[in-house]
Amino acid sequence: MKEKLSIVKIGGNVIGDPTQLTDLLQLFSQIQGHKILVHGGGKKATELNKKLGIETKMTNGRRITDSDSLDVAIMVYGGLVNKKMVAQLQGFGVNAIGMSGADGDAIKAHKRPVKEVDFGWVGDVEGVNSENVLKLLKSGFTPIFCALTHDGKGQLFNTNADTIAAEIAIGMSDDFDTTLFYCFEKKGVLQDITNADSVIQHIDSKNYQTLLNEGIIADGMLPKMHNCFHALQNHVKQVCIGDQTMLQEGSTNFTTLTL
Amino acid sequence: MKEKLSIVKIGGNVIGDPTQLTDLLQLFSQIQGHKILVHGGGKKATELNKKLGIETKMTNGRRITDSDSLDVAIMVYGGLVNKKMVAQLQGFGVNAIGMSGADGDAIKAHKRPVKEVDFGWVGDVEGVNSENVLKLLKSGFTPIFCALTHDGKGQLFNTNADTIAAEIAIGMSDDFDTTLFYCFEKKGVLQDITNADSVIQHIDSKNYQTLLNEGIIADGMLPKMHNCFHALQNHVKQVCIGDQTMLQEGSTNFTTLTL
Repeated sequence: MKEKLSIVKIGGNVIGDPTQLTDLLQLFSQIQGHKILVHGGGKKATELNKKLGIETKMTNGRRITDSDSLDVAIMVYGGLVNKKMVAQLQGFGVNAIGMSGADGDAIKAHKRPVKEVDFGWVGDVEGVNSENVLKLLKSGFTPIFCALTHDGKGQLFNTNADTIAAEIAIGMSDDFDTTLFYCFEKKGVLQDITNADSVIQHIDSKNYQTLLNEGIIADGMLPKMHNCFHALQNHVKQVCIGDQTMLQEGSTNFTTLTL
Repeated sequence: MKEKLSIVKIGGNVIGDPTQLTDLLQLFSQIQGHKILVHGGGKKATELNKKLGIETKMTNGRRITDSDSLDVAIMVYGGLVNKKMVAQLQGFGVNAIGMSGADGDAIKAHKRPVKEVDFGWVGDVEGVNSENVLKLLKSGFTPIFCALTHDGKGQLFNTNADTIAAEIAIGMSDDFDTTLFYCFEKKGVLQDITNADSVIQHIDSKNYQTLLNEGIIADGMLPKMHNCFHALQNHVKQVCIGDQTMLQEGSTNFTTLTL
């Protein structure tokens, strides 16, 4: 039987709230077995961009990562947020090790091809170096991944943290029984967006189509669901969506997705 | 017989010069056997402090690390400089992994005690977790350390990169035959400060005292020499001081220190 591996992607809103972040890291530290944490930078990158007078460039409502914004992402995701989390987790007894996709050649990507929009230094993931990540896990380290990837030739990229979490989960599924946890500000996927407690307990390929057709899954939830099913279709055992309380032993009030 | 380990500390001046840095990383990539790189942030931290309007606080000519400057150090050392170096080294075929002292609990420190000066968030090293560093080396990773340490309870510290390099060399000397390389802008320790080519080839405990008495070793070289002999007295096999060409196979024009 394969060992268990939990991959937890934490939401941007948590990163800006020290109390909530401490709670979350404490819950993460209590997860049994092998585990990996994935994070972005929340609003901290936007804040630093602003302080440095770097304009957030947008095309058709999509954010562009130019060289200056990439540097900010590297500083905030890879430096400030990652290292502080690693230090805090060490305090909670987790042998955390901070990672970008360049460290240990963990996540290879290429620059997103230019179609209507040139997104700049945004990377589309090619794959995860599961051998190197496995070595870290087997040596007793807990990798803490920020939302950066690399091309293997010296170039770093900004990459969506949800995607990174899904790709790591997929990459590690040959070696582990993987569960992917997407923590965000809601209790789960909601039946009624106006009712925070209307959590859909279980989504599978069958009712997923119905939920799409009925417009219950819409807007910002669409790419998240896409990541979830992409992961499930590539041997990830289950995906859980909810707020951080779902990391608590015995918690049940969140959405579980299976094929 | 123990395996060899090379620990290379690179100078601040190199970090600000992309061409020189690329040369140095290429030379580093060609070093045979296990190796570790250690770096600070050069002038990049000062530049970012300036851009963010953070004053560099000094007391008696010594720099103070307040919370804001610590955040900048974390962003620049742990983020911008470290991750870019890691990505570049991956391009040169080195399986680099970026580290602060918090990652893998690698370097524990405590806040420097307040005597005449409160240095703020500056850490004095307590020791290196050689077991964890060894695991990384044995797994085929090349650790790239920035000048940050932690207290194991969640607090990061700014710590002198020369000191970190010496402490890592000391910490790893039970397991390896360690050579510590201090790269800086000069070719070595100079007999005559006005003559860049007057490199003293070899310094040991005997002629060290003479060089001190004659004032040949003075000023900025004093703390560097202190680090070197501290390392040698704690089982580091040899220390080399020079510019980056000393990393070249067959190079001899630099200063070697032994007990």
